Amino acid sequence: MALDKKKAAEAVLEAKVRHGVTWAQLAEAIDRAPAWTVAALLGQHPVPADLAEKVAAILELDADTTLALTVQPYRGPWDGAVPTDPTMYRFHEALMVYGPALKELIHEEFGDGIMSAINFKLDVSRRPDPDGDRVVVTFDGKFLDYRW
Amino acid sequence: MALDKKKAAEAVLEAKVRHGVTWAQLAEAIDRAPAWTVAALLGQHPVPADLAEKVAAILELDADTTLALTVQPYRGPWDGAVPTDPTMYRFHEALMVYGPALKELIHEEFGDGIMSAINFKLDVSRRPDPDGDRVVVTFDGKFLDYRW
Amino acid sequence: MALDKKKAAEAVLEAKVRHGVTWAQLAEAIDRAPAWTVAALLGQHPVPADLAEKVAAILELDADTTLALTVQPYRGPWDGAVPTDPTMYRFHEALMVYGPALKELIHEEFGDGIMSAINFKLDVSRRPDPDGDRVVVTFDGKFLDYRW
Amino acid sequence: MALDKKKAAEAVLEAKVRHGVTWAQLAEAIDRAPAWTVAALLGQHPVPADLAEKVAAILELDADTTLALTVQPYRGPWDGAVPTDPTMYRFHEALMVYGPALKELIHEEFGDGIMSAINFKLDVSRRPDPDGDRVVVTFDGKFLDYRW
Amino acid sequence: MALDKKKAAEAVLEAKVRHGVTWAQLAEAIDRAPAWTVAALLGQHPVPADLAEKVAAILELDADTTLALTVQPYRGPWDGAVPTDPTMYRFHEALMVYGPALKELIHEEFGDGIMSAINFKLDVSRRPDPDGDRVVVTFDGKFLDYRW
Amino acid sequence: MALDKKKAAEAVLEAKVRHGVTWAQLAEAIDRAPAWTVAALLGQHPVPADLAEKVAAILELDADTTLALTVQPYRGPWDGAVPTDPTMYRFHEALMVYGPALKELIHEEFGDGIMSAINFKLDVSRRPDPDGDRVVVTFDGKFLDYRW
Amino acid sequence: MALDKKKAAEAVLEAKVRHGVTWAQLAEAIDRAPAWTVAALLGQHPVPADLAEKVAAILELDADTTLALTVQPYRGPWDGAVPTDPTMYRFHEALMVYGPALKELIHEEFGDGIMSAINFKLDVSRRPDPDGDRVVVTFDGKFLDYRW
Amino acid sequence: MALDKKKAAEAVLEAKVRHGVTWAQLAEAIDRAPAWTVAALLGQHPVPADLAEKVAAILELDADTTLALTVQPYRGPWDGAVPTDPTMYRFHEALMVYGPALKELIHEEFGDGIMSAINFKLDVSRRPDPDGDRVVVTFDGKFLDYRW
Amino acid sequence: MALDKKKAAEAVLEAKVRHGVTWAQLAEAIDRAPAWTVAALLGQHPVPADLAEKVAAILELDADTTLALTVQPYRGPWDGAVPTDPTMYRFHEALMVYGPALKELIHEEFGDGIMSAINFKLDVSRRPDPDGDRVVVTFDGKFLDYRW
Amino acid sequence: MALDKKKAAEAVLEAKVRHGVTWAQLAEAIDRAPAWTVAALLGQHPVPADLAEKVAAILELDADTTLALTVQPYRGPWDGAVPTDPTMYRFHEALMVYGPALKELIHEEFGDGIMSAINFKLDVSRRPDPDGDRVVVTFDGKFLDYRW
Repeated sequence: MALDKKKAAEAVLEAKVRHGVTWAQLAEAIDRAPAWTVAALLGQHPVPADLAEKVAAILELDADTTLALTVQPYRGPWDGAVPTDPTMYRFHEALMVYGPALKELIHEEFGDGIMSAINFKLDVSRRPDPDGDRVVVTFDGKFLDYRW
Repeated sequence: MALDKKKAAEAVLEAKVRHGVTWAQLAEAIDRAPAWTVAALLGQHPVPADLAEKVAAILELDADTTLALTVQPYRGPWDGAVPTDPTMYRFHEALMVYGPALKELIHEEFGDGIMSAINFKLDVSRRPDPDGDRVVVTFDGKFLDYRW
Repeated sequence: MALDKKKAAEAVLEAKVRHGVTWAQLAEAIDRAPAWTVAALLGQHPVPADLAEKVAAILELDADTTLALTVQPYRGPWDGAVPTDPTMYRFHEALMVYGPALKELIHEEFGDGIMSAINFKLDVSRRPDPDGDRVVVTFDGKFLDYRW
Repeated sequence: MALDKKKAAEAVLEAKVRHGVTWAQLAEAIDRAPAWTVAALLGQHPVPADLAEKVAAILELDADTTLALTVQPYRGPWDGAVPTDPTMYRFHEALMVYGPALKELIHEEFGDGIMSAINFKLDVSRRPDPDGDRVVVTFDGKFLDYRW
Repeated sequence: MALDKKKAAEAVLEAKVRHGVTWAQLAEAIDRAPAWTVAALLGQHPVPADLAEKVAAILELDADTTLALTVQPYRGPWDGAVPTDPTMYRFHEALMVYGPALKELIHEEFGDGIMSAINFKLDVSRRPDPDGDRVVVTFDGKFLDYRW
Repeated sequence: MALDKKKAAEAVLEAKVRHGVTWAQLAEAIDRAPAWTVAALLGQHPVPADLAEKVAAILELDADTTLALTVQPYRGPWDGAVPTDPTMYRFHEALMVYGPALKELIHEEFGDGIMSAINFKLDVSRRPDPDGDRVVVTFDGKFLDYRW
Repeated sequence: MALDKKKAAEAVLEAKVRHGVTWAQLAEAIDRAPAWTVAALLGQHPVPADLAEKVAAILELDADTTLALTVQPYRGPWDGAVPTDPTMYRFHEALMVYGPALKELIHEEFGDGIMSAINFKLDVSRRPDPDGDRVVVTFDGKFLDYRW
Repeated sequence: MALDKKKAAEAVLEAKVRHGVTWAQLAEAIDRAPAWTVAALLGQHPVPADLAEKVAAILELDADTTLALTVQPYRGPWDGAVPTDPTMYRFHEALMVYGPALKELIHEEFGDGIMSAINFKLDVSRRPDPDGDRVVVTFDGKFLDYRW
Repeated sequence: MALDKKKAAEAVLEAKVRHGVTWAQLAEAIDRAPAWTVAALLGQHPVPADLAEKVAAILELDADTTLALTVQPYRGPWDGAVPTDPTMYRFHEALMVYGPALKELIHEEFGDGIMSAINFKLDVSRRPDPDGDRVVVTFDGKFLDYRW
Repeated sequence: MALDKKKAAEAVLEAKVRHGVTWAQLAEAIDRAPAWTVAALLGQHPVPADLAEKVAAILELDADTTLALTVQPYRGPWDGAVPTDPTMYRFHEALMVYGPALKELIHEEFGDGIMSAINFKLDVSRRPDPDGDRVVVTFDGKFLDYRW
């Protein structure tokens, strides 16, 4: 199918390398958060048509790729649920080690419920540290309580 | 085996319910971060002997349980890698949707490498919001670059 | 193979985007329930030839795609039994949490047997609610009792 | 561990058989919806202490079982994600066949988002039908739109 | 739990060996088909109380085992979906080799639908043959057509 | 590879739809049992060259497809061992529920051994019934006893 | 259950170590092939009662263990299909590397069919070799041709 | 990639059918054991260049296929570890049933170690038998003892 | 079973904690390499009886545990092939990233064959480094070439 | 996508065969360790542009392949986590057998922490031995202690 979000994501990645554009530049061009921008251009969010056009202009994407970026996604990983890439695996490992602790602390503070992954935002930043700079990732989601 | 960290974690959970103690109180009693405290008492970190004694005094744990808390763990989940509990699953889902975005942003900001899950800390907090309070989870790990 | 129901489903999805047609319009055009219409056009039911022709006229499908829509399907998901897409996963989660309750209540009300998934219909609707509108999904299947 | 929700669920099931009590009677006694009542007594929701006491009085449950019912659960199935029991499997099959249709119709009606499985209720009822009575199951969850 | 159908099945199997009783004798004693009798005593059907009493008298089962036989089952295999036992595997292999042929012939003869596994019976018999006697297994289920 | 039995099966299915031929007609044309015919044309048995020619003449298959039909197969399902298609799944479910009963009855009648799935035939037929016609499937295989 | 073939196998293994008896001695005592003897005592074949008695006398097995040895087995591995033990894995690896070659050679020599694993025997022997002695394992099974 | 051993294996299989050549003829032409010959031409061993040339001359293989045959393989099955093809499955079943017996007999005869699957050869032969000819497969590998 | 190597390993681990003995001390006491000592006491090698006695004297193990240490093991992990523990996972990750490189370099240097994991030894050491000390793990196995 | 690291790896492997170049020559040409060179050219590390150019000149790679070599990888195996190739499997087996021993020895020597797989290097060498030369593989990674 021509309107394939996976192919569109590959086209974005390829054009980004060839044009030497950064994610930060793309995020600024469409005035969205960097994490949203990357996730959306990699196929995890529908991109509003006007923003897709701006990205297409910068990356010289063809019309099918641009239209594909706007399509409603079937979200999730393309290659199985547990990542093998070390950079992504460390987050998975942190959840295996700290998942029950997260659950216990959420219930103690908020009661029975969850952090939404839908009404949700994410940020990645650098914190300088004399012992080596640190990656700081913040998950920020609305609390939803179990309500019948 | 008597020195079983899973049984110790169950004993902690049970004593915590019966004594009506909170994780916050336990963390304060041993002067450690709440997330570290919960993870450690659930068997994911070795607890220094003096801290284990303090926890044992509060929760009236027996000697074997207390010793088990101090043993070096085999870390990881006890029931499979993908959690079915909704409170934990939402974090897994967020990684499936945003994992590649995290990877791209880390590489753009730091180069080829990872966020350490070992030199790492975690925090859970509440952020008041008129549209419903929010769960804010921060992952804070040292950047490690691929170095031969 | 030219008569491929997956390719036909992709062709329908693509034409639907390009022509700006809604599922509701397609369902009305063939006078079928919306849920049946979407499932059938995505390859889960054989579409009667006259209805396939009507859809083909609206979406400008080619002859092979149209014929493929009428073929008897091999039903089921194309990419594994547990969905990763959040919109679909919530239904899977609800079944994990409430599946045994559904089973107990069916047996208490009807005795030993099942709700048919064959003599079955499905409806999705919106119920306005001041706290936020609600998605209401109804499963309606004939009861079949275990009978030797 | 004595405060085990799985053992508590087994104790409830066993006492229910021995006392000849129905789920409907238990639900009425605690004034909750039947589906919530069954799910909660099978370990999928924490049962408020006063309601747990009422159930315990009817089913003659011991103190540990009663306390276990009130504990915060780790939700999800105890024996793997895909049910083999035919009564439960039919719902899984319906999701495999109709899951993408549900997704498409939710997006068409509500935009990009999900039906909550947390702010959610469920009902099972019988609809008389001359061709054989029908099982009608209603999923009713708040719509949550993707919001950054 | 005392009312455990798996333990009850094991008790039946053990008592059957110790008493030297055959399935045929048990089936005759309760006047049911042999395949139904074995499946039910192995935990796949609820056994009516009077029949459970007759079996209990023959096999000298205790009261809990007898009551467990009458409980509504969670059906399905206890050790994973694909059998390793050669006698059971051959049926699985036959379905892998002939499953699509069964599907095609059912659709050609009956249209779009299924053979019910609920309104269903099964028979195993021996057919003498000079080249070696044959096992003849008959699956006999009501046809259910897809009906919205 | 041009001599691909999966592609040949797809070509047969496609030509069958386009020519409006039934499996029964094909089986009659080559004078073989219907179940054998379908299984063989779907790639599960090597088709003798003269019969392949007859089928090719009716369905206007090309030379490579015809030759591919005659090749020795690697038997088994092309898409995983547990079918998701409801028509095929019901047989799988029946084996999960009745597999141990089949095993017990075979051993009681024949001793330690198996029903062959190689020296084996299969039949699908319709049995009229006032409560709804029935699908009757017969597995007929030679008994093989464990013999060292 | 007392008549458990797995527990019986463990009892045999344990008694064999404590009594310092070899498999060869046990095989000779019951006048059966060594491979059959080990497989049967490990629970993969029913042991005739008189032979079970002879083994029980040598290994001082209790009555339940002895009876369990005579029970009809559910054959197959107790811990998953792919062995991790290196001594057993090498056979699995040989089948992965040479399985298609075995298949091709059997078909070339015998036509379409299989080597029976039921009418089958197995032998393990040592062949002296100056470069290091060799393990020689012979699989010897009746050829069964596909016959409808 | 042009130098693909899987494509080369398919080309060999196809050419073998079209030219009507047997494995025995190919093995004789290159003066190697039949099992080695088939395994190597199916991609499990690198074929020395002169032998690849001889095979290419007989089967009229093109230059890329011929070169691919000589490349060092990544060994193992192309479609998952447990074969579904009945001819190959019987060997897998035999290992599930007799694997522990093989292990016990190897250890009893040779001590702690393995049969090598590298310094290893395999033979398939026919043994005439009045009750039906037999397939005799011999695994012959050097014993390697665990040595630190 | 009393002679259980997993229980023996747990008894060793527990006694080691209670007695405050190190692996280095145990290895020295039996005059074996540390890696062999730990692997053997954790159940991966049979321990010669005299060495088992020495360990038992130090750790005050009971007679069954001591005998269990000498039994021939079924080697491999007790909890699945892919470790979740971070300390062990890093080795698994290194093999995923560098496995093909290891293979290519072994073939380039040695030809077609493998590094033996049987005639094999392992060493773990510390290498001081101003940027942080390093873990150095050496795998040392005999090369075995593919030889028919 | 044209910038595909898997296709680039295949192109490198193919060109290496056609040009008769060794990994050692490539490593020397770019002045990097052999293991790093092979891993990087097989897609597991980004190759600096000047080194990619040197490799391209030797292997006559096209521009897209050369650019693809420089792209940041998604690391990990392309075909599942457990290798079936015997040369790679032996390392996996060694980790299954010795993984817990590695863990215990690292903790005893270094305390709670891991060997980094990021700040890490690997070496493969040959050690002559009269009983057969040996493959010596050294893993050398920085120790990272768990630090909150």
